[in-house]
Amino acid sequence: MKIKNYYRLPSGVQDLLPDECYNLNLIEQKLAKKFSLSGCTQVQSAGLELYDTYAEIKNKIPQKKMFKLTDSDGSLLVLRPDMTLAVARMAATRLDDVPSKLCYFSSVWQYPQTGGLSIREIYQAGVEFLGVSNPFSDAQGIAFAIECLEEIGVKDFIVDIGHVGFFKGILEDCALNEECVEQVRLLINAKDSVGAQALLLQQGAFESAVNALAALPTLFGGVEVLSRAQKYTTNQTALSALSHLKQVYELLKSFGLEKYISFDLGTVKDLSYYSGVVFTGLTKSLGSPILSGGRYDNLSDDFGKHVPAVGFAMGLKRILITLERQGSLLPVPPVDVAIVSEPDAEALAYQTYQTLTAQGKRVNLFTGDHARMQSLKEQGITLLLASKEGVKEI
Amino acid sequence: MKIKNYYRLPSGVQDLLPDECYNLNLIEQKLAKKFSLSGCTQVQSAGLELYDTYAEIKNKIPQKKMFKLTDSDGSLLVLRPDMTLAVARMAATRLDDVPSKLCYFSSVWQYPQTGGLSIREIYQAGVEFLGVSNPFSDAQGIAFAIECLEEIGVKDFIVDIGHVGFFKGILEDCALNEECVEQVRLLINAKDSVGAQALLLQQGAFESAVNALAALPTLFGGVEVLSRAQKYTTNQTALSALSHLKQVYELLKSFGLEKYISFDLGTVKDLSYYSGVVFTGLTKSLGSPILSGGRYDNLSDDFGKHVPAVGFAMGLKRILITLERQGSLLPVPPVDVAIVSEPDAEALAYQTYQTLTAQGKRVNLFTGDHARMQSLKEQGITLLLASKEGVKEI
Repeated sequence: MKIKNYYRLPSGVQDLLPDECYNLNLIEQKLAKKFSLSGCTQVQSAGLELYDTYAEIKNKIPQKKMFKLTDSDGSLLVLRPDMTLAVARMAATRLDDVPSKLCYFSSVWQYPQTGGLSIREIYQAGVEFLGVSNPFSDAQGIAFAIECLEEIGVKDFIVDIGHVGFFKGILEDCALNEECVEQVRLLINAKDSVGAQALLLQQGAFESAVNALAALPTLFGGVEVLSRAQKYTTNQTALSALSHLKQVYELLKSFGLEKYISFDLGTVKDLSYYSGVVFTGLTKSLGSPILSGGRYDNLSDDFGKHVPAVGFAMGLKRILITLERQGSLLPVPPVDVAIVSEPDAEALAYQTYQTLTAQGKRVNLFTGDHARMQSLKEQGITLLLASKEGVKEI
Repeated sequence: MKIKNYYRLPSGVQDLLPDECYNLNLIEQKLAKKFSLSGCTQVQSAGLELYDTYAEIKNKIPQKKMFKLTDSDGSLLVLRPDMTLAVARMAATRLDDVPSKLCYFSSVWQYPQTGGLSIREIYQAGVEFLGVSNPFSDAQGIAFAIECLEEIGVKDFIVDIGHVGFFKGILEDCALNEECVEQVRLLINAKDSVGAQALLLQQGAFESAVNALAALPTLFGGVEVLSRAQKYTTNQTALSALSHLKQVYELLKSFGLEKYISFDLGTVKDLSYYSGVVFTGLTKSLGSPILSGGRYDNLSDDFGKHVPAVGFAMGLKRILITLERQGSLLPVPPVDVAIVSEPDAEALAYQTYQTLTAQGKRVNLFTGDHARMQSLKEQGITLLLASKEGVKEI
């Protein structure tokens, strides 16, 4: 039978079938354990929020990125567009005694920036380390990102580190207004350095700043990037960003994690709330980041309380695709035992099911269906028949 | 600082703070294990769906119950309003080899029928047993509901069983049109039997049917309800519903579960898709059902494939409130160990954290903060100081 069009799904959202869901659950279980061992406590935020929550703050989310709907009382709602903002809101307004580490497993909904067929319902796992701002805390955040990717078995990944201070410092020298800085940030994020340079030149920026900006897309690679970058600027903010990155790198090296680390000073992220270190988890198996994070010390100021923080989120669907391409997904295991009940032996069948599940066996209990039984036997499932005479293996 | 109004949430949705989330996770873990042992495989459906999916089918969801929004291409979307329908859609359109048992942990969004301040974002755990339709399968569904409530530690609960066939049979004799039957169903569901009788009389229904309908709200209690109900009707559909319920009861009794069972023939549910047995989990600790389920053999017909099914969903937030009122919630456990690192001992501190977490210890790692350290010590957390001299307990 042809599936009617209206049984399909809107673009950019998906059902997860048993095999995908099984592997997603395995990932979640590993992460939940990892989060717990590292002292994280889990929170969950509402899926529907007031539009004004994200429109009235300094670190706005662009209106056109949010799914909007009207409530029955006329107020404008949005589907939760971002977990870091939601956690910052909760930490600032609901948690008196802010725990130092929060984690979550949640979906966010966003219209893609660039159009196209991107995923619009994004299921994420993430952490936020709250309350401390120093290189050690940054290094811990990045180290924990690496630990998490290792834990769930992602192979061949790197974490690309940048610092928004470098980019901001370069622009400081140009005396641009805030709006113009934001425009440049968006252009750089879209890897459009030609557009960014043109905008800077039009605003009468110094040639040195324009040159530094032009160099941004080339400032990636090993730790030597930091010394290379130093030559492009004399701005104090930019230089102290580089020296901060050096400290974070030394710490990560002392943790034995330098093999995972690379630098990319052109990373400025598509949200405006980052204030320091930013990082991105990449793997050759996927063309898009599987992890994204950074420091946002002023984010919760928007919600009335200063809580410095570093954190990251992993796109679990992207990680699922990565693991699939790396051949690491597992098939859904069949049950251990199937119990078939003849009429009038249901009580015995149920009792057997109770006994076996109490022993940790996975058990399916059903009424006789011989075609089905044959197929179960072929899968290696133990088949028990409950009849008036008792239970026997068949 | 006063919290600005736009940092609050819309009515009927909630954030879950660490203590609630911790207990919710414990419930989920227990249920996930229970589901798996009983041979369920998990699925997840998209949170956004096309409006027409639920507007064009026979078992419509009332338009005014759904949260609607317009997609960027102009099509009308809804927030997933119901998991049973979503699973039926998936089973009929996406799963060729329908597994016999599916389960899920998902939110649905619904405007409350009666107005007021009801929860509108409802986080549910549920199961659907697909493919079989007989009293044993109904009894298994109800037995599994009881097992699940026992597993998560709900005390003093009962499962109230009814059958939509009884109500439908009574109305059969009245020769009402479909719309009118639906109106009566909604009135009975709202416990407005006076309104339902008035409607029937106005439509010229037999007095015997009107009397049976008037008796519906009184037809609850032990298994003797079934014999009492028999006296009110000679309709074959109604009588065979009663005889089916008797068979289900005998099975549940043979499973040793009769202490949990009561009957309520006035239960007709607020959705139209139920076709047979319906049941509701109730506890004295809460004024609302904590579990709701039943049989819907024709539901997936709407999506192009006949898959008989029985299933139920638990409202996890309601169960959380129930467990809280029953004094069964646990406090979030503090970490086992906190490691404080002095400057230049970060590598040692990180190595100690790695060693301890590998041993299964929950460990928080941070830089020195003496006020904080005192408070950790008071919580009974082992405090380790990493310095150039090594790691020592303080």
